[in-house]
Amino acid sequence: MQPLAHAIRFLSIDAIVKAQEGHQGVPLGMAEIATVLFTQHLKFHAADPEWPDRDRVVLSNGHGSMLLYSLLYLTGYEAISLAQIKTFRELGSRCAGHPERSVDAGIEVTTGPLGQGIGNALGMAVAEASLRAQLGEHLVNHHTYAFVGDGCLQEGMGQEMISLAGHLQLGRLILFWDDNHMTDDGDTHLAVSEDVCGRFRMADWHVVEIDGHDLEAISTAILEAKQDPRPSMIACRTVIGYGVPRVQGTRGGHSARLTPEDAAAARQQLGWPYPAFETPEPILNQWRAAGRRHESFYHDWHQQLAALPRQEQDEFQRRISGALPPELGQWLDEYKQQVIEKGDACPGIMASSEIHARLTPIWHERLIACADLEAPTAHKRLLQAFTAEQRTGTYIHCGIREHVMGAMANGIAAHGGAMPLSVTYLAFSDYQRGAMRMSALMKLPVKYVFSHDSIGVGSNGPTHQPVEILASLRAMPNMYVFRPADAVEAAECWQAALEYITGPSTLAFAKQSLPLVRTQAQPGENCSKRGAYILAEASVGTRAVTLLATGSEVSIALEAREQLQSQGIPTAVISMPCWELFECQTDAYKREVLGSNTVRIGVEAALRFGWDRYLEGGDFVGMTGFGDSGSAEALYQHFNITPEAVVAAAKRRLSLV
Amino acid sequence: MQPLAHAIRFLSIDAIVKAQEGHQGVPLGMAEIATVLFTQHLKFHAADPEWPDRDRVVLSNGHGSMLLYSLLYLTGYEAISLAQIKTFRELGSRCAGHPERSVDAGIEVTTGPLGQGIGNALGMAVAEASLRAQLGEHLVNHHTYAFVGDGCLQEGMGQEMISLAGHLQLGRLILFWDDNHMTDDGDTHLAVSEDVCGRFRMADWHVVEIDGHDLEAISTAILEAKQDPRPSMIACRTVIGYGVPRVQGTRGGHSARLTPEDAAAARQQLGWPYPAFETPEPILNQWRAAGRRHESFYHDWHQQLAALPRQEQDEFQRRISGALPPELGQWLDEYKQQVIEKGDACPGIMASSEIHARLTPIWHERLIACADLEAPTAHKRLLQAFTAEQRTGTYIHCGIREHVMGAMANGIAAHGGAMPLSVTYLAFSDYQRGAMRMSALMKLPVKYVFSHDSIGVGSNGPTHQPVEILASLRAMPNMYVFRPADAVEAAECWQAALEYITGPSTLAFAKQSLPLVRTQAQPGENCSKRGAYILAEASVGTRAVTLLATGSEVSIALEAREQLQSQGIPTAVISMPCWELFECQTDAYKREVLGSNTVRIGVEAALRFGWDRYLEGGDFVGMTGFGDSGSAEALYQHFNITPEAVVAAAKRRLSLV
Repeated sequence: MQPLAHAIRFLSIDAIVKAQEGHQGVPLGMAEIATVLFTQHLKFHAADPEWPDRDRVVLSNGHGSMLLYSLLYLTGYEAISLAQIKTFRELGSRCAGHPERSVDAGIEVTTGPLGQGIGNALGMAVAEASLRAQLGEHLVNHHTYAFVGDGCLQEGMGQEMISLAGHLQLGRLILFWDDNHMTDDGDTHLAVSEDVCGRFRMADWHVVEIDGHDLEAISTAILEAKQDPRPSMIACRTVIGYGVPRVQGTRGGHSARLTPEDAAAARQQLGWPYPAFETPEPILNQWRAAGRRHESFYHDWHQQLAALPRQEQDEFQRRISGALPPELGQWLDEYKQQVIEKGDACPGIMASSEIHARLTPIWHERLIACADLEAPTAHKRLLQAFTAEQRTGTYIHCGIREHVMGAMANGIAAHGGAMPLSVTYLAFSDYQRGAMRMSALMKLPVKYVFSHDSIGVGSNGPTHQPVEILASLRAMPNMYVFRPADAVEAAECWQAALEYITGPSTLAFAKQSLPLVRTQAQPGENCSKRGAYILAEASVGTRAVTLLATGSEVSIALEAREQLQSQGIPTAVISMPCWELFECQTDAYKREVLGSNTVRIGVEAALRFGWDRYLEGGDFVGMTGFGDSGSAEALYQHFNITPEAVVAAAKRRLSLV
Repeated sequence: MQPLAHAIRFLSIDAIVKAQEGHQGVPLGMAEIATVLFTQHLKFHAADPEWPDRDRVVLSNGHGSMLLYSLLYLTGYEAISLAQIKTFRELGSRCAGHPERSVDAGIEVTTGPLGQGIGNALGMAVAEASLRAQLGEHLVNHHTYAFVGDGCLQEGMGQEMISLAGHLQLGRLILFWDDNHMTDDGDTHLAVSEDVCGRFRMADWHVVEIDGHDLEAISTAILEAKQDPRPSMIACRTVIGYGVPRVQGTRGGHSARLTPEDAAAARQQLGWPYPAFETPEPILNQWRAAGRRHESFYHDWHQQLAALPRQEQDEFQRRISGALPPELGQWLDEYKQQVIEKGDACPGIMASSEIHARLTPIWHERLIACADLEAPTAHKRLLQAFTAEQRTGTYIHCGIREHVMGAMANGIAAHGGAMPLSVTYLAFSDYQRGAMRMSALMKLPVKYVFSHDSIGVGSNGPTHQPVEILASLRAMPNMYVFRPADAVEAAECWQAALEYITGPSTLAFAKQSLPLVRTQAQPGENCSKRGAYILAEASVGTRAVTLLATGSEVSIALEAREQLQSQGIPTAVISMPCWELFECQTDAYKREVLGSNTVRIGVEAALRFGWDRYLEGGDFVGMTGFGDSGSAEALYQHFNITPEAVVAAAKRRLSLV
């Protein structure tokens, strides 16, 4: 088996030498671990990388990407050809500098920013346990493995993962820690002196410490880990850059530039007489056999699926495809009609929790991960908790661990078959922004739900009042940011967010009560889905003023419109719940909504940053800095976000004052 | 002493009942701990909250703000009068919902987002140890105490703090954990089952477990903690909401609304017959005496300071005031001249590290906290590390723990006497954004230094390439974002950032080599300090095109200008290293720089978001989504960020194509 490990090493060395850069530390140090895992334990079928019941593998130390590419090529993943490996790190290569999620190529998640991968692995293990409990072991029965570096475990995210995975007792989650004592900056002792294994044990993990180059010890450890009911951490003492005499076991082992001479010296040291990029046929054949060794198991699984009643099959396929339950639109329509009939004001976040309570009977693949905070936890209505003892639950108490909550949601979405929500206050989105960026980069349909979306938070003060956060999220590619104005828009935004399956959504809800501004809605209609729409057209003549508002400020804009129109100034109110969807509309629609030759005023209890694209040199009524502690009413007055301020701004622009 | 603790309880209850909201859990649960600390151990002098050698106290569980306000009022801090306490949570009150940093009132840091406070406490302990080693125990000799809730310890940030404080063996850091088994959502066991004390022990902390209502045990534990050379965690088993029969020990103890009936029942239960907001004189006198008990010590300290040679006194005062070393401007000028004379291109981040290497001999209060990454660690040149053994070092190996690195920097800045830098890649600023927001909110002069500021990162790919991050930081109030175009601007931006002492700065440097674009600089001149300036005016006639660029794209704009002018189109290039400083200029200056009746084109290897404010409906050459893996050169071509693209955009706008 040793030559199989060396095959990984030399593919990696050759690719890194050719690219003139790369990180050899991981592929050279973890080659034995990877070989044992992929040839003896991992359940996979290289011919079908998307087999739903495959074991999941995450390279959390993503800089070591050549480890993964070597494995995928050797075991026979079609997308990762030798030609691709030879273009490692070049523009257009499937073998990018860091692994970029592409399930068809066997790359489960994008990794690189440290800690994200193990957070994803936690999510995958949650998804597996949930689906197994809901659908049965005959369809879902696999493990999640992650390769982990020191950096992943230093990150707060990694620490949150340790704590939460131990709490949830995810016994199918198995980590391999590349304990090589080296980082980019030198010995790990420069920055770490804690007992890493002890830290895992304190969180109720199964921990075993082995020599990471001992093939037998690795296999035994994996067997033990699979049997232990706790999540497992296999601490693998390894030599970084193993095999390259000049750098092995040193700081340079991490990513010092390898030369052709290094490659030659490694061939000498490890007894590998083959040319660059050449894996001898007997060795390659053994690897390819490993990639096919679950073939009959794979076919059995498909037969089991095919033998199920048609409805069960369809439901399984629907879930795996990420399609929504077909009744969902109708249920949301009914909710909207009821809201309009009642006509009551409602706190934004409570509309969201009410919507979810209503969807519970028809929507089983939803997993709600929630921080321990009052308004967000309203989303647990009617739900059982997903716990160590009860895997059919669909509500996950995440405590105060926003970052891993986001990464876990990414892992759930990447796993497939379940739809993750992550719920907390908008101000704390900053804590999970690293994970949100990964959702956006991977185009995963995670729903980030937030309460407390503005100074409307009130007296908890500026720490809890987002003012810049809408802008910072609108700046993120692929992220749709929704800010509904009332309960009707809440339902519409939820529907639009659910239909957006090629990227993440942010749903920002007010803490405070929102009067109903949408008093009419046709069945099947979704105004919010167009991103912005004319909520109230000018009704006293040709539009002279266009008020653009979102969320809780839409009602302020409507009041301002009343005042302006009563003074003979024709004014329209545009509700803009989602800028990104508005940008997808035709130019004609945009012109119609925004109007031409009118004074434009933006109204949002947030900073102006980003608004200028819509204002045509117009004015903005909103925040100019951080908030303050006081009642919501007092703050709106204090910061001058009022109908009167909007009226004054419009009249100033019209040169009427 | 028990009545003293009850005095805290009833002030807190009465203020919360009056405000009709608030978090009683902490002040009622930690009253004994706070009483013992403030009356027997804490070194402070209420009459001078800014005494540099005071012990620092951080309320990391900031929602329990009434604990702090009660203590400050009772011990006699002038700013926190009874009138202020009666306006708790009202707009304009010094007693805001969460503590807002105001050193004159005894509030060391703003807290609320969990984990930040203990990260700050770590930084204060670092600052104390550093200053003590540099200046001597006669001037600096104090402890840092922090009140900590479960949430702070669940946060990844808190976990990073545990690991780093243990590694650095900050023996003067003492935490009180409010181990009350309750959170906002119910029992802590909903989300946590790890051995919290064990986790601290694994990181080499001194841990002692006590009954948090046992006055004697608390005092003994503090004495022990002070003697132990390790950082100390005192696990205090407490009853949340202690004293209010309806809620104590339950979820409602956290923040359920307290009524006048609750206040009455608590008075009954705890034997407190006094009216609302009234602390009986004997008890108040004891508290006030505690606030004065270091009076002679305080005067001795000032005498010691006054007895020092004038130069030492001045240097101490300069440091405490945050003033820069006077020679700094001159040294930076000399660096600029040398750079211009040599005329070499230079990677942006290397210019920053060179600047710091040059400043080392004259700038002793600088503490450089750095993540373990190659380019950032270039800033350690000529510096010794600050370690458990060596406190005179000024470079802190932070490992891969960005969030606590930022919070630690806040703590260092809040402590005073030292100037913190935090250094990592720009893409990972997302991991420390929670701390950056706190810098901005507290207006602390932390310098956030970043390498790898765009797709110029190259083949490490989109995870490591910021595209939206400049926008997300420009959106943050009080944050100055600098992006220098070459080594001359690097020095100018550093100078401007250093002179900005009422808020944080982001300095974003390119990884790649930047040609010199500023080939002239007068001594004492700082063009970058105006935020934007005319780098090259149109020279073939009246300006028709204005190219606005930052950082590595300034040289692209200059090349585009050459091409446009060679075609007879008068073109100016505006370098915009800091938008926030440009916004501070006069309207006349802004008009002069931006020009009028010209076509404006923005050029930045980032998203357009935020740029529209400067473009007057013009065009933008930059990114439209995430980056990719490939060489920097290939990426600039691929994403069409080239002089040719700028020329084409300008001509399109001029209707010349």
